[in-house]
Amino acid sequence: MKLKEEDIILLAKSFFNTNLNNLVKGIGDDTAVLKPLKTDYELFTSDMLIEDVHFILKKITPYNLGWKALAVNISDVASMGGIPTCATLSLGLNNKIDYFWLEMFYQGMKDCALEYSVDIVGGDTVYSPNSIVINISLLGGTDKPIYRNKIKNNYILATTGELGNSYAGLWVLQNIKNNFSEDELFCLEKHSKPKPRLKEGNFISSNIQNLSMIDSSDSLYTTVKILCEQSNLGIKIFEKMVPISEQTKAIANKANIKPIDFALYGGEDYELILALPKQEFDNIQDEYIRIFSSKLICIGEFIESSNEITLVTKNKSKKLKDKSFKHF
Amino acid sequence: MKLKEEDIILLAKSFFNTNLNNLVKGIGDDTAVLKPLKTDYELFTSDMLIEDVHFILKKITPYNLGWKALAVNISDVASMGGIPTCATLSLGLNNKIDYFWLEMFYQGMKDCALEYSVDIVGGDTVYSPNSIVINISLLGGTDKPIYRNKIKNNYILATTGELGNSYAGLWVLQNIKNNFSEDELFCLEKHSKPKPRLKEGNFISSNIQNLSMIDSSDSLYTTVKILCEQSNLGIKIFEKMVPISEQTKAIANKANIKPIDFALYGGEDYELILALPKQEFDNIQDEYIRIFSSKLICIGEFIESSNEITLVTKNKSKKLKDKSFKHF
Repeated sequence: MKLKEEDIILLAKSFFNTNLNNLVKGIGDDTAVLKPLKTDYELFTSDMLIEDVHFILKKITPYNLGWKALAVNISDVASMGGIPTCATLSLGLNNKIDYFWLEMFYQGMKDCALEYSVDIVGGDTVYSPNSIVINISLLGGTDKPIYRNKIKNNYILATTGELGNSYAGLWVLQNIKNNFSEDELFCLEKHSKPKPRLKEGNFISSNIQNLSMIDSSDSLYTTVKILCEQSNLGIKIFEKMVPISEQTKAIANKANIKPIDFALYGGEDYELILALPKQEFDNIQDEYIRIFSSKLICIGEFIESSNEITLVTKNKSKKLKDKSFKHF
Repeated sequence: MKLKEEDIILLAKSFFNTNLNNLVKGIGDDTAVLKPLKTDYELFTSDMLIEDVHFILKKITPYNLGWKALAVNISDVASMGGIPTCATLSLGLNNKIDYFWLEMFYQGMKDCALEYSVDIVGGDTVYSPNSIVINISLLGGTDKPIYRNKIKNNYILATTGELGNSYAGLWVLQNIKNNFSEDELFCLEKHSKPKPRLKEGNFISSNIQNLSMIDSSDSLYTTVKILCEQSNLGIKIFEKMVPISEQTKAIANKANIKPIDFALYGGEDYELILALPKQEFDNIQDEYIRIFSSKLICIGEFIESSNEITLVTKNKSKKLKDKSFKHF
């Protein structure tokens, strides 16, 4: 079924008619109109996803793609200690996309928006002759923004959850055609439908005084590299403390890649990565476990040696080099 | 010169280090951090530009492309009666783009940002294997948002300036290889470096009580069609009152197209299109001329007959049909 611009806008209006936050006028005028936030600070972020770079049309359901496109922005707001409010969606489409695909895409995005109380308030829909393009811009609010650059020597590095699952899922997408095992399905789901740690981010930022935070969207290695650079410190990562799921270990085994490399160099886990004093970490842990039924996991320690990223294994320490995927 | 992601971010930081508005932290963290606006309402808009759909790399300078990408969003804020504040820039790039191109692109965007007091506070830079993609999301503020749907019978239709110049410029781009005439250069400039009517929009919205406003980005025909639909009215457009430049008339003549068709069906003029009571139009005109050294131009009148768009010429009236360019 061929898409008409009017149909696309009508469809978007029918899906994105929520008003969970500060919306005065959504889709349908030159701009959206919002009531200003009541928080002390406003957050503003954008992410662009390009077909065959960030997703492959045949390898992700439109529902999950819609979910994920919004979720990755929510994760950025979560890592600032904020609450998301309103988003715009710009879409570059062509005749690879039909009405039903778009319905499922909008449904996935709407379900993510409802789950995290976000209103989709406007955007743009244009023709893109080659790649499908998705850009989300998201607003949020916080009274206490959490930055990346206030780390001191001896602060510990912690994560809200397992690392490597998403990359294991990507490996499955690229290497397994069908008849997925349970392990593979688990990692595929982690890759295709990430759940940003919004409540966790809010709890952590409210309860820790000396905190730096970032999300692990760009791999653990890249994430700690950024943290080290911004505070001119080095870090030791303790291999045995890095949480890696049994499922990811099984897939890494099949792929003949070390599980720790999935965790270090794979991105898109959308866990929060924290730097904080050990004392504050210890103080918050019990309450965190009580609320979230999972624990904050210490995986490393910041050290004086500038910008050195060291992996401490059972027998030795080795300096890590950048093996992350680069597009440019 | 091949682009590296770090270079792109460093270059963006070096260009977009302004703080003209409410910025607390710009490029370099998970999100930008802003102080909330002091206006009663916040505006939020996004536009996506795709190579070979909205621009052709060889036919626009990177400087003008950078300018225009931001300007089209500023025009949306202007037509809401608002003032723009902060923008994010998402870029999808590939090896067609080199460092010097990107410098000129950023320079054009920065000059537009300075001209209209906008801060570029963040965004995303990704690899796009086929088309270059540009998405700008812009925030703004106003105490009195101006919508499109409050038009009554007998209200007049007015514009802040000439229509058709941009489309004439596009025709030149598509049909003339070199040795541009003065007329052609005039229209090329109008097409490639539009100047949003921000001050005009603010003056008009502050001084007119019963006002609907929109920008003419999507052609005069499409614009009045939207206005008519939203208020369930029809409109008479008086051909001889539609302002068309001598330059556009000369190019239309060369193209063997009626000048009025350039004005009616060509888009991207970024003039403001107003609907308001005749009395209010008359009351504001002198002051408007004094401030802006140009006048508001009445070009039509809204009538009861639902959704009929009629062009009144010297000898007859004819109902107009949609000849606007459609991508889908």
